[in-house]
Amino acid sequence: MNVAIVGGTGYGAVELLRFLYNHPHVKVAKIISHSNSGIPFSEVYPHLTNIVDLEMEALDVENLAKEVDVVFFATPSNVSKHVIPSLIDLGVKCIDLSGDFRLRDGGLYKSYYGEDIAEETYIQQAVYGLCEINRQEIKEASLIANPGCYPTATTLGIIPALSKGIIDKKQIIIDAKTGTTGAGRSLAQGFHFSEMQENFKAYKLGVHKHIPEIEQVLSDVANTELQVTFTPHVVPMTRGIMSTIYVDLKEKLSTKEAINLYKEFYRNDPFVRIREEGTIPQTKEVFGSNYCDIGLYVDERTGKLIIVSVIDNLVKGASGQAIQNLNIMNGWDETTGLTQLPIYP
Amino acid sequence: MNVAIVGGTGYGAVELLRFLYNHPHVKVAKIISHSNSGIPFSEVYPHLTNIVDLEMEALDVENLAKEVDVVFFATPSNVSKHVIPSLIDLGVKCIDLSGDFRLRDGGLYKSYYGEDIAEETYIQQAVYGLCEINRQEIKEASLIANPGCYPTATTLGIIPALSKGIIDKKQIIIDAKTGTTGAGRSLAQGFHFSEMQENFKAYKLGVHKHIPEIEQVLSDVANTELQVTFTPHVVPMTRGIMSTIYVDLKEKLSTKEAINLYKEFYRNDPFVRIREEGTIPQTKEVFGSNYCDIGLYVDERTGKLIIVSVIDNLVKGASGQAIQNLNIMNGWDETTGLTQLPIYP
Amino acid sequence: MNVAIVGGTGYGAVELLRFLYNHPHVKVAKIISHSNSGIPFSEVYPHLTNIVDLEMEALDVENLAKEVDVVFFATPSNVSKHVIPSLIDLGVKCIDLSGDFRLRDGGLYKSYYGEDIAEETYIQQAVYGLCEINRQEIKEASLIANPGCYPTATTLGIIPALSKGIIDKKQIIIDAKTGTTGAGRSLAQGFHFSEMQENFKAYKLGVHKHIPEIEQVLSDVANTELQVTFTPHVVPMTRGIMSTIYVDLKEKLSTKEAINLYKEFYRNDPFVRIREEGTIPQTKEVFGSNYCDIGLYVDERTGKLIIVSVIDNLVKGASGQAIQNLNIMNGWDETTGLTQLPIYP
Amino acid sequence: MNVAIVGGTGYGAVELLRFLYNHPHVKVAKIISHSNSGIPFSEVYPHLTNIVDLEMEALDVENLAKEVDVVFFATPSNVSKHVIPSLIDLGVKCIDLSGDFRLRDGGLYKSYYGEDIAEETYIQQAVYGLCEINRQEIKEASLIANPGCYPTATTLGIIPALSKGIIDKKQIIIDAKTGTTGAGRSLAQGFHFSEMQENFKAYKLGVHKHIPEIEQVLSDVANTELQVTFTPHVVPMTRGIMSTIYVDLKEKLSTKEAINLYKEFYRNDPFVRIREEGTIPQTKEVFGSNYCDIGLYVDERTGKLIIVSVIDNLVKGASGQAIQNLNIMNGWDETTGLTQLPIYP
Repeated sequence: MNVAIVGGTGYGAVELLRFLYNHPHVKVAKIISHSNSGIPFSEVYPHLTNIVDLEMEALDVENLAKEVDVVFFATPSNVSKHVIPSLIDLGVKCIDLSGDFRLRDGGLYKSYYGEDIAEETYIQQAVYGLCEINRQEIKEASLIANPGCYPTATTLGIIPALSKGIIDKKQIIIDAKTGTTGAGRSLAQGFHFSEMQENFKAYKLGVHKHIPEIEQVLSDVANTELQVTFTPHVVPMTRGIMSTIYVDLKEKLSTKEAINLYKEFYRNDPFVRIREEGTIPQTKEVFGSNYCDIGLYVDERTGKLIIVSVIDNLVKGASGQAIQNLNIMNGWDETTGLTQLPIYP
Repeated sequence: MNVAIVGGTGYGAVELLRFLYNHPHVKVAKIISHSNSGIPFSEVYPHLTNIVDLEMEALDVENLAKEVDVVFFATPSNVSKHVIPSLIDLGVKCIDLSGDFRLRDGGLYKSYYGEDIAEETYIQQAVYGLCEINRQEIKEASLIANPGCYPTATTLGIIPALSKGIIDKKQIIIDAKTGTTGAGRSLAQGFHFSEMQENFKAYKLGVHKHIPEIEQVLSDVANTELQVTFTPHVVPMTRGIMSTIYVDLKEKLSTKEAINLYKEFYRNDPFVRIREEGTIPQTKEVFGSNYCDIGLYVDERTGKLIIVSVIDNLVKGASGQAIQNLNIMNGWDETTGLTQLPIYP
Repeated sequence: MNVAIVGGTGYGAVELLRFLYNHPHVKVAKIISHSNSGIPFSEVYPHLTNIVDLEMEALDVENLAKEVDVVFFATPSNVSKHVIPSLIDLGVKCIDLSGDFRLRDGGLYKSYYGEDIAEETYIQQAVYGLCEINRQEIKEASLIANPGCYPTATTLGIIPALSKGIIDKKQIIIDAKTGTTGAGRSLAQGFHFSEMQENFKAYKLGVHKHIPEIEQVLSDVANTELQVTFTPHVVPMTRGIMSTIYVDLKEKLSTKEAINLYKEFYRNDPFVRIREEGTIPQTKEVFGSNYCDIGLYVDERTGKLIIVSVIDNLVKGASGQAIQNLNIMNGWDETTGLTQLPIYP
Repeated sequence: MNVAIVGGTGYGAVELLRFLYNHPHVKVAKIISHSNSGIPFSEVYPHLTNIVDLEMEALDVENLAKEVDVVFFATPSNVSKHVIPSLIDLGVKCIDLSGDFRLRDGGLYKSYYGEDIAEETYIQQAVYGLCEINRQEIKEASLIANPGCYPTATTLGIIPALSKGIIDKKQIIIDAKTGTTGAGRSLAQGFHFSEMQENFKAYKLGVHKHIPEIEQVLSDVANTELQVTFTPHVVPMTRGIMSTIYVDLKEKLSTKEAINLYKEFYRNDPFVRIREEGTIPQTKEVFGSNYCDIGLYVDERTGKLIIVSVIDNLVKGASGQAIQNLNIMNGWDETTGLTQLPIYP
């Protein structure tokens, strides 16, 4: 199957290429980059010298529709919403790694993304590609809104407890930490090596785009409007997200019981690993892989369940999950092309 | 004034030396190290070649009492409690960077530190050296229990709100992050560079020693028994602590009002800097210095006050605060010897 | 084909597992670790939870010979030399990642490795597994002495120029830099995160074990005894080696001509990439992969050829090259199981 | 004494502020920044909140001359040459951290700096501020060309051997490594945290600006035209330079003898520390301080002397040395304001 990647020079694109290179059923036929059309991809990313010999191209929707079956969008916000409708109309399936089709509420979209939401008809078609939760809908989808990195780690961490009704829906606190690739390839003073090294920082308190996304997913599960407190931080490392989540247990529960509940919930999910009692996952333990590892601890003194969920933000939090979605859409084994193990150390 | 440092090869000791070298009223006359007696200090720490020419010595209490006026203990847990009583009896003032004299409750001490607490009479004499809060008692003290690193960042962050009665005492959640020097100089697999680099991890969920210390300090302020939820994490950097603290506001308050309240509270404290609205402190902004920087944000959607408090764990969280205590005890300007600015970048 | 790995808890072993997991012709049937016998591998390396379910076993040569066809040794120095002879005698092929069978000269071995060399008959059988240079001999070998990390990067960088006779054999200066995994998993103060972070250091000037190995390889190529000046350094990063090599050109040569000469030399070698003029490879560009990337620059002012050669020390410098050797020994495509791309960023 | 700093937002400026804040004889009266005029300095550098309360100003030479006695230039190349002449004419002493006045040869300047050199009369007045070598001339100088970072580490490492005539002047190879602050504060893809982390790279082979500077200094010492081979590299850390220097000994010399020769040479220099046999300095051992530490090793097999010289590039390689020059110019103790110890770990 031929696919194209739009947004060629971002980290999402390069990570898609890393996995798709070893995918048995897929060939990356085109890399689209508005600003780098005509430039060999390996000039921007010399680590792919002798491996990827494509030149980047400008976007031409008609042409694209003729040559590929699926298009991945690894573009900034407010780009894919202008292109995906035409592709869908031409029968091309789209997997969008940006946030353009994730939210259903146009008002929320506008206030967090600064522009109008995509056309309603496509918003309605879009399936939120959180594979472990929406597998059935993904099978039939033509347009996947691939989840954000924080929402993936966070909602996979909360959903089992929430759906079992064992926690208070009014007190959900998410203290999240990401590696720097979460901020993408664009330069910024705060991500200049000299200023990010030996530094740890919080940012966008209360206003991060992923807040409405997390709330939408959790509200769907809970069948009621939820609000969360969410604080993102940046860690001086390239990859990895940890969400440390604090929720109030409605009734007494042991750590062991919580673990069993989570294991049961994810028993058929190859990429979610629930850790044994006493072991809390570390970000490096999923580095470069599509795993989401979850550790649990019940603080009996304060009646809280503490959930620690880790992913590689570029893999399960972006490109890996996008390929997992592609696999599900095509009826291939969900792990196809995604069997690379975590790199450690 | 002549002082001695016990626990010579730890990071606490080397950091005391860094500041005391430029302190106008103090001379480090002795460095005591049980295991390195007879070895030149600069052999263990070559960065002090030509600067510190002392040899480390074994501990000899009588002799020490003759030659110095103050002894700093930068020793592991359960060491200073065996030595400080004799020194106090001989009229030597002691500043203990370990946890031996911080807790008043022997039962709690035993359950978190694994051994019996120090003799009651000395526990009663000990003053908890959180300078900004206990300045008056410190002036008269002979024995200072220098606060732990997490408790310093955390309690300085919470106390203003707590003492003003604006927050719910039942919901205090502390998500704390430290650099690796917090774990000291002893080798451990988890701090081996190859395994700590590009890694972020939580540890000791619900069982960290600093939990009872934080609760004791806050309970004193609140005049009631408090419990907190506290989760420590390790960041792949050497120095710096950030405590991100989540508390529930009893009544509506704007971010600006919260900031003003904190500014007023710390108006006479040279080492606490309350940041302006919209600016959240980063750990690197206090690197190497004795500052505690605090940023505030009111999440109006969820009614929470989010407090971000950062320190350099080895300075305000250990050796710097110890010297600040020494200054207060001697009536010197509180900043003496501590005017080194943060190193940035 | 069933294989075993001896030296289970080292980084060499875990990296063998990472690649062999996706190797279509190989199954890792046993992991041998003297000190961890009976312990599940994923307890030591939780990133392999749910993936590797083997328990480590004590070494039992007879039993091993019955169950596997090839044994990889990822052991410290002076271990494999005691075991490999019995395995070879029992018809098991061995690939030794340690230095025990690399040197032919017993005197040199003793002075650099501190013990007697392995039995002469096995030393003679051993083929030095530098794939690009010794491919023919490797095909027939039963015992592979897998090259050291520095020697791999360094000799691949020098051999083309040396074998073409364009450089002075008397002035070869190698300034080498490695990531910390080169020092292995054993704890040491110098590799404690707090002391290695923000640090760069030279070590073992003039006495590193890889000096005689590099000289042996180059002397073979040059057909005369060579000596090199070799200075290793450690970089605060986990993976990657760069050898910056300074040699004197006998006659004028342009950078372009040097590049063409190298491209011609390695024209059939899938894992060596010669970079275009003006591009010097960076270690991150081979991170996690089996590539050796080489950049060249002729300094016309001083008549020197400067060669920059980079590898991932754990892959092309250890486990990847070991699998490349396995592939060659078995007549499989040389890249089988090694097609994982560099991880960037 | 009032001083001004031009080039306010660069790392050189902020590092000057760090040291001058504790300098007993100096007050920073003005910070000049073309592009940030009117902005409070602590807005750009929040770590100086409550410490530096100056606003940055536009440059006004007349006004500056009235209010300050000395001006530090921490500007990019080709800026100070347009301003310093006027200031000198108005009787203001200038210390230039940029390269504008370092080279004497206009042709070389043009080919390495891309523009015409400063006016000859000021070039002639400029004293190259390598304190340990040119102390006498510095005392009388009005205009200091403060040395570059690589030239400082490198020439301090070579000069003793060169001036004693024990090495071959024709074979000087300098393999240099710097932390990222050497590249300054301006953003660049190669210094984006995500791409610099876990990366080590060589750059500007054969064309770095510091080549003619190093050659000019060494040629002066040797009284003959010298050429060097110089390869700079970047280390994933913020601060620190190591120059590993390879020279050929003319006659046999032991490591011990080399060390004694260096100790004798620098016997009156408080900031140069010659290490004992068997100890090679590491960059972290001078972090944040004005020291230059030098280690020596004679490789008897190849007849080479290997010199390892380390500095903090922002201190002894820039701002610290600038203040050392100020002290010498004013007859103050050379270490005034520079007694901050290395920060370790």
